[in-house]
Amino acid sequence: MLFTNGKKILQLSGCEAVYTSCLYQLRYLTGIEPENGCAIVDETGVTLYTDMRYMEAAEKLLAGTDVTPVLYKQDKLKERLASYKSVGISFDQTTHSEYLALEKAGVKFENIDKAYAEAMSVKNEWELERIAKACEIAEDAFNMLLPEIKEGMTETEVAALLEYNMRKLGAQGLSFETIVAFGAHAAVPHHETGTTKLKFGDEILIDFGCKVDGYCSDCTRTFLFGDDGKHEEFKKAYASVLKAHELAKAKIASGMTGKEADAIARDSLKEDGYGELFTHSLGHGIGLNVHEFPSVSPRGESKLVDGMVFSDEPGVYEAGKYGIRIEDTVTLKDGKVKSFMSKTDRNLLIL
Amino acid sequence: MLFTNGKKILQLSGCEAVYTSCLYQLRYLTGIEPENGCAIVDETGVTLYTDMRYMEAAEKLLAGTDVTPVLYKQDKLKERLASYKSVGISFDQTTHSEYLALEKAGVKFENIDKAYAEAMSVKNEWELERIAKACEIAEDAFNMLLPEIKEGMTETEVAALLEYNMRKLGAQGLSFETIVAFGAHAAVPHHETGTTKLKFGDEILIDFGCKVDGYCSDCTRTFLFGDDGKHEEFKKAYASVLKAHELAKAKIASGMTGKEADAIARDSLKEDGYGELFTHSLGHGIGLNVHEFPSVSPRGESKLVDGMVFSDEPGVYEAGKYGIRIEDTVTLKDGKVKSFMSKTDRNLLIL
Repeated sequence: MLFTNGKKILQLSGCEAVYTSCLYQLRYLTGIEPENGCAIVDETGVTLYTDMRYMEAAEKLLAGTDVTPVLYKQDKLKERLASYKSVGISFDQTTHSEYLALEKAGVKFENIDKAYAEAMSVKNEWELERIAKACEIAEDAFNMLLPEIKEGMTETEVAALLEYNMRKLGAQGLSFETIVAFGAHAAVPHHETGTTKLKFGDEILIDFGCKVDGYCSDCTRTFLFGDDGKHEEFKKAYASVLKAHELAKAKIASGMTGKEADAIARDSLKEDGYGELFTHSLGHGIGLNVHEFPSVSPRGESKLVDGMVFSDEPGVYEAGKYGIRIEDTVTLKDGKVKSFMSKTDRNLLIL
Repeated sequence: MLFTNGKKILQLSGCEAVYTSCLYQLRYLTGIEPENGCAIVDETGVTLYTDMRYMEAAEKLLAGTDVTPVLYKQDKLKERLASYKSVGISFDQTTHSEYLALEKAGVKFENIDKAYAEAMSVKNEWELERIAKACEIAEDAFNMLLPEIKEGMTETEVAALLEYNMRKLGAQGLSFETIVAFGAHAAVPHHETGTTKLKFGDEILIDFGCKVDGYCSDCTRTFLFGDDGKHEEFKKAYASVLKAHELAKAKIASGMTGKEADAIARDSLKEDGYGELFTHSLGHGIGLNVHEFPSVSPRGESKLVDGMVFSDEPGVYEAGKYGIRIEDTVTLKDGKVKSFMSKTDRNLLIL
């Protein structure tokens, strides 16, 4: 599968060669992301340049693939790059310093940010399997967490325990820093997990995910730590968010634009009177980055197609009171939405 | 302390203003690092540009400081930047895309990578306190880990448990992905933590660290999981690495170059016959990045001065057999080395 990705980028770019030193692009083109590494793709294959520290590991991991690891020599690399008629690089992922150094060496560039966005948005089977595994680990870790949640625990302790579970189950890292929000903190979509202690009757919002071979999962669950009878408004809003979440799953179809997909959930929330309180997009692409192309939002002009992976995450936030978000990582298969998440409950859970 | 950092950069840069959108530079100048944020420093103070999602949190965190958070408006920002005679940016931390966009807006740039390296290498009291706390958490977490290490655990499980302990003790993130290497894996300085199971008699090398308010700790400990009587060579090498580690602590002094400091440990290992097996630098600067200026290596031409923070980490690696590294995070105070680490044993530990 590896050279498949390289070929895809090369074709989309229209360049004679493609060059990168960006970690996630290295991972995309070679399957690994050695610090201080870089890669060239041309019609002969993919060359990964790395240093002594990573050479042994690279040779082992890349045996039998179309990726050839070689020792990095600055002069040889620059000479090779300068020999191409055109070299595609990502202006969004190249530092200005590196650009200047390569320009000085006579390399002729083209910006291929769009080729990366387009190529990476449609996943192959190998990539879908990684994302499925990352989703499975996230859900299993969440289910292991639930019986461990006790009164008096801090947001950070809950996050630490969930992260531990994911690591223990084989996650190779986190998709992002876990967000745990108790009570009204949940109304802040980017709440910074802190030292607040859990009280009976609190709502809990957890936004989390992990990586498998670089590929991310992204999940949010909102639930109650006991029912103190003061959650009427919350429960009404929860039902509306869940309806929007499920409606998006049922109705989003390949060929729609991101904007049309977003409108399915947005219109449903508007009808229920929550339009103003849904303050973000319905979703974003997920892959080697936890936020990538395509955009499933009112600004999403691109079409959604089979093999794309994105989030379905409507939310309602009432400042100072409550916040609700229900998020699955999903893909499009045979024209329809298929969720990677089936092990955790989306119905309101009361611990 | 925050505007102190801004002033320092502004003075060192010699520019009328300084601009950044790089996360660690934002943290350095403003104390926080909101996604999609950016900042301008000029003689009037520091302005942090952020979006609605982070505004509330930013206002709360920055109250009473010289940093003013304002809502990001692209046009206004570009207009302001274009009004300065010169704007310092870090070419190493600015993407080529952003450079082009600002250039188009008429901004006149200077590269101030060196100003950042120099300013950030010497820490103030507030920063030293954060690093001290990050080191304390790392050591406490390690001590909590030791009694939990059992035969049959995988490298990943040990890493997960150590990371959990650090998070539980208040770490806000990891300095880097924890390296746990059993047996001969320890001979690979950048071993990828995996599913190998721990056996009686194995050596264990753990390289780990965590963050407090963005500031990193970095620590390595090497020890034995039981003594199967087959570790003579290992023990001899361990004693030599420990000698080099302690010698560096005793003899490194403010005013030396990184090269001179490195030579203290390197010469000691050479005398013991391990010169060829010490395959990396003695140390690297530590702060908001776990690897930063200065370099404590044979290529370290810059002088070490009071307030710098760096690692003291000699190592000896015999491929296929064993690897040893003993690493503390240290600083220079009153001309001498002061280690931030005092809670874990550097003498050979046998579990």
